[in-house]
Amino acid sequence: MLKVTVLGTGNVASHFINAFSKNSDIQLVQIFNHKAETLKTYSSFDTTTQLENLKPADVYLVCIKDDYIEGLIHKINQHKAIVAHTSGSLPLLDSINRDAVFYPLQTFSKDKNITFKDLPICIETKHKSDFKILQTLANLLEAKSYAVNSEQRQDMHLAAVFVCNFVNHLYHIGHEICSQKQLPFDILKPLIQETADKINSKIPREAQTGPAKRNDKTTINRHIHQLDNPDYQEIYRYLTSSIQKTYE
Amino acid sequence: MLKVTVLGTGNVASHFINAFSKNSDIQLVQIFNHKAETLKTYSSFDTTTQLENLKPADVYLVCIKDDYIEGLIHKINQHKAIVAHTSGSLPLLDSINRDAVFYPLQTFSKDKNITFKDLPICIETKHKSDFKILQTLANLLEAKSYAVNSEQRQDMHLAAVFVCNFVNHLYHIGHEICSQKQLPFDILKPLIQETADKINSKIPREAQTGPAKRNDKTTINRHIHQLDNPDYQEIYRYLTSSIQKTYE
Repeated sequence: MLKVTVLGTGNVASHFINAFSKNSDIQLVQIFNHKAETLKTYSSFDTTTQLENLKPADVYLVCIKDDYIEGLIHKINQHKAIVAHTSGSLPLLDSINRDAVFYPLQTFSKDKNITFKDLPICIETKHKSDFKILQTLANLLEAKSYAVNSEQRQDMHLAAVFVCNFVNHLYHIGHEICSQKQLPFDILKPLIQETADKINSKIPREAQTGPAKRNDKTTINRHIHQLDNPDYQEIYRYLTSSIQKTYE
Repeated sequence: MLKVTVLGTGNVASHFINAFSKNSDIQLVQIFNHKAETLKTYSSFDTTTQLENLKPADVYLVCIKDDYIEGLIHKINQHKAIVAHTSGSLPLLDSINRDAVFYPLQTFSKDKNITFKDLPICIETKHKSDFKILQTLANLLEAKSYAVNSEQRQDMHLAAVFVCNFVNHLYHIGHEICSQKQLPFDILKPLIQETADKINSKIPREAQTGPAKRNDKTTINRHIHQLDNPDYQEIYRYLTSSIQKTYE
């Protein structure tokens, strides 16, 4: 039985807490947050607001904001255990012996369920034996584990920003155009779904369609005129130009 | 039994031909293309390269490039029937009595199957009776029909460029980052899927995550340095700035 303590109660933490607590091969030892208020949701678990009260565990999973991770890890007086953070950006800390990374490559929202099945988890450790322990943890969640070093993880995170955060912003722009023109956003949903599905049968370069790919200048110019937000006009111009260069 | 002739053999045409030919309530009368070569695939159907040889039908569905639609429609000497184009951009032609639009809001690739079930089709006609006929055609395909006028259709098309064509280009950038760094693109697929799924439970504005939303300047600056393509740097800057303005 793997003993795990979760530090944090945000988006990522809440999904791990949920998955660990349902898994009979994982013992969720404790949940830490410095605010007592946010721990109320987890009153059925062993919780603490004091790092010095942390109980022994095999893995301390640190799911807090990047800026606070280093400070917090230094304060955990449990260096005999693995201390793994879940950040896409931060490297391993030299000063901590069993520092590790357990980065789930997914977008988490508090009120939307996530399945860990087949979800990629990027693992980095200083010691091979720690890698195996975190791989076991990923396996117990039925996730897919990948050995990814700090540099590769930063590149994965950058790629993730493009295919997730920026993509969602383009959905937002589409949603805004629909709202302004009293058109139902629902009408776009099958298109959004099919665009995402296509990557399973074609590489994106081959899946590209649209006026930029066809170099349909009349439509491109009219579209830019249709937009009244200058930022969206610039985004339209830059993405169109970048698509055109891809197929030059 | 609704009699339909398809003009064109491209992405959109091929999916309509496939759907019509399998539907026992639709008679696919003929397939037109000006090149005999491209009609070879459809040798089991009645095909023609000559507009003057078009047989009587209830609907002539014009699935060809925007630039050629007007010229071709004028040459179809069958004005007693509905002549419907499938373009997202072109308005109705005043000079044609039963001109109409039958615009499927979807991204089509020749070698990837599409289900028409629940797929939105934007219909515009000059006559109410023609609207009903095209609505019947959509119903027979189990698609969802929407009455969308030319101006609204142009806005839908613009929104579609953002949520489909531009989104796919962001997938391409993610794919390129992975290729350059010898990382498997597969690792991003659950993230892409979840990002698209989220729009079913949250509006995009509420689903936004990532460094731009969090205003995580350290990560943003590092990401821009990680990119070696100046166009991708500009896309990163503009999208980040636009996300930040959305949450100001």
